[in-house]
Amino acid sequence: MSLLISGSVAIDNIKTPSDMQEGLLGGSASYAALAASLFCKPVHLAGVIGHDFPQAHLNLLTSRGIKLDSLEHSAGESFTWTGEYHEDMNSRTTHKVGINVLENWNPRLSAEAAQVKFVVLGNMSPDNQLQVLDQCQSAEFVAADTMDLWINIANERLHDVMKRLDLLVINDGEAREFAGTTNLVEAGRLLQKKGPRYVVVKRGEHGSYLFGDGVEEFFSCSAYPLESIFDPTGAGDSFLGGMVGWLAANSRAKPSFHDLKTAVAHGSVTASFTCEAFSTQRLENVSVAEVKRRLEELKDYTAFAM
Amino acid sequence: MSLLISGSVAIDNIKTPSDMQEGLLGGSASYAALAASLFCKPVHLAGVIGHDFPQAHLNLLTSRGIKLDSLEHSAGESFTWTGEYHEDMNSRTTHKVGINVLENWNPRLSAEAAQVKFVVLGNMSPDNQLQVLDQCQSAEFVAADTMDLWINIANERLHDVMKRLDLLVINDGEAREFAGTTNLVEAGRLLQKKGPRYVVVKRGEHGSYLFGDGVEEFFSCSAYPLESIFDPTGAGDSFLGGMVGWLAANSRAKPSFHDLKTAVAHGSVTASFTCEAFSTQRLENVSVAEVKRRLEELKDYTAFAM
Repeated sequence: MSLLISGSVAIDNIKTPSDMQEGLLGGSASYAALAASLFCKPVHLAGVIGHDFPQAHLNLLTSRGIKLDSLEHSAGESFTWTGEYHEDMNSRTTHKVGINVLENWNPRLSAEAAQVKFVVLGNMSPDNQLQVLDQCQSAEFVAADTMDLWINIANERLHDVMKRLDLLVINDGEAREFAGTTNLVEAGRLLQKKGPRYVVVKRGEHGSYLFGDGVEEFFSCSAYPLESIFDPTGAGDSFLGGMVGWLAANSRAKPSFHDLKTAVAHGSVTASFTCEAFSTQRLENVSVAEVKRRLEELKDYTAFAM
Repeated sequence: MSLLISGSVAIDNIKTPSDMQEGLLGGSASYAALAASLFCKPVHLAGVIGHDFPQAHLNLLTSRGIKLDSLEHSAGESFTWTGEYHEDMNSRTTHKVGINVLENWNPRLSAEAAQVKFVVLGNMSPDNQLQVLDQCQSAEFVAADTMDLWINIANERLHDVMKRLDLLVINDGEAREFAGTTNLVEAGRLLQKKGPRYVVVKRGEHGSYLFGDGVEEFFSCSAYPLESIFDPTGAGDSFLGGMVGWLAANSRAKPSFHDLKTAVAHGSVTASFTCEAFSTQRLENVSVAEVKRRLEELKDYTAFAM
């Protein structure tokens, strides 16, 4: 089924303990759209770029079946993020954020994009998320991510978003902050009360939790084990895109909890590839067969007899 | 098969955000022995207590099939731990440690205890662990835990212990420190190179990883989800005791990786009960049927279709 991914499209400059690269493709929508395009075509992308955005990045996106008819080209400079990972890949330092064209962006969807059934509101301001959602007249399944910044400075608007979601995907630290409890199981359940029927709490290297209806509908998905992480930027966005991309291609418009579990596993494994190279470089080249192979391994790594 | 649990036997004073209790049964060997006794009888316990140790705690242990013939009664004061958990149950503050009778303890096993096939070296000094191990002439499977203190002040002796282990069970922070890497998958593999064929990295609320031979032998066990944690003291010791207790009762003297996986799941679920009340109060009263029920749920919570 048709899918729209909205969010930021960025130019990233990333330093890791072993390397550094500039001018990389980044942003929540870029990662999510590439991940989704593994399973679902076409993927409509809504975002904004500036005059300095490399054509090569756009070519890459279109080559993967991503439609850029809702990607606005603005006269300003592109949104940029400059950051550094330390020896412990779980922590990073942001050196510079250039909001630039994102500042006054008013998302406008193409007629075709506005007709999609599956909508992903990637990490961006709740105002932008609502603007996108207001244009999606045929949406049947809406998923969103967010971050600590919006929890802090746009809490009320974020609650407006929450009421209109089928699925919230959020990382563990932000789930704790947003729900106001340190217990992740309790946090997931509390976040459901803010609106979304389904909540996924991403736990970084540990995997993710999926919460559905009642205590029975709980899924703990382990992360695919990686002995080394090259660049974790965009792993969470890849998770979201892979998850909803799989749903859009394989489930009914109102997916079941069973569908959601399989989607989480696909999102999790897709994200594992993202961590293996700078930016989207590994994600761009992964095949569905490689994803399936890791899923088989993950099943084996998590099964036990009684 | 016969089982020995060695380690500390303590009097604990614990404060949580909701309650406080003093004079509680504590110590690595107490938790591990109670957990093991769920699956295996008898369990021999090796430790040391002082003149002030409550008889009620000893009665409890013996009532659960735990043999105290290698528990030394010393004239000094018992080992005590006084600590506090904050709102975030993942962090705690130690207010006071009274080493007392542990200071000059030289473990002496009864003739019967010295004949066991399965040996657990609970968290205590590597010197004490080696003293116990030297007396176990018939040991066929040796498991140990440790902590940051010994990694820092007795690193060489700890390496001597490692060379004689079949299984190391260690928490995530200590695995990172001992292995010298922040990646837990890499840490597990590096710790295997120090001696033990099997390594379990306990990941607290997230579960545990089990490492066996080669990349194929990897198991990611999720924790049983708890919406509230009452007192996590001894959860790791309960994990170790439950795990090896199940192995001693259900596997051959040289358990397979398949056995280890099932044992990890049993240890994990056993530990979940420990967190539900002060000290050993929930662990004392749990039934094997309750453990099996949670194992069934955990299987359901972690399975997915492709």
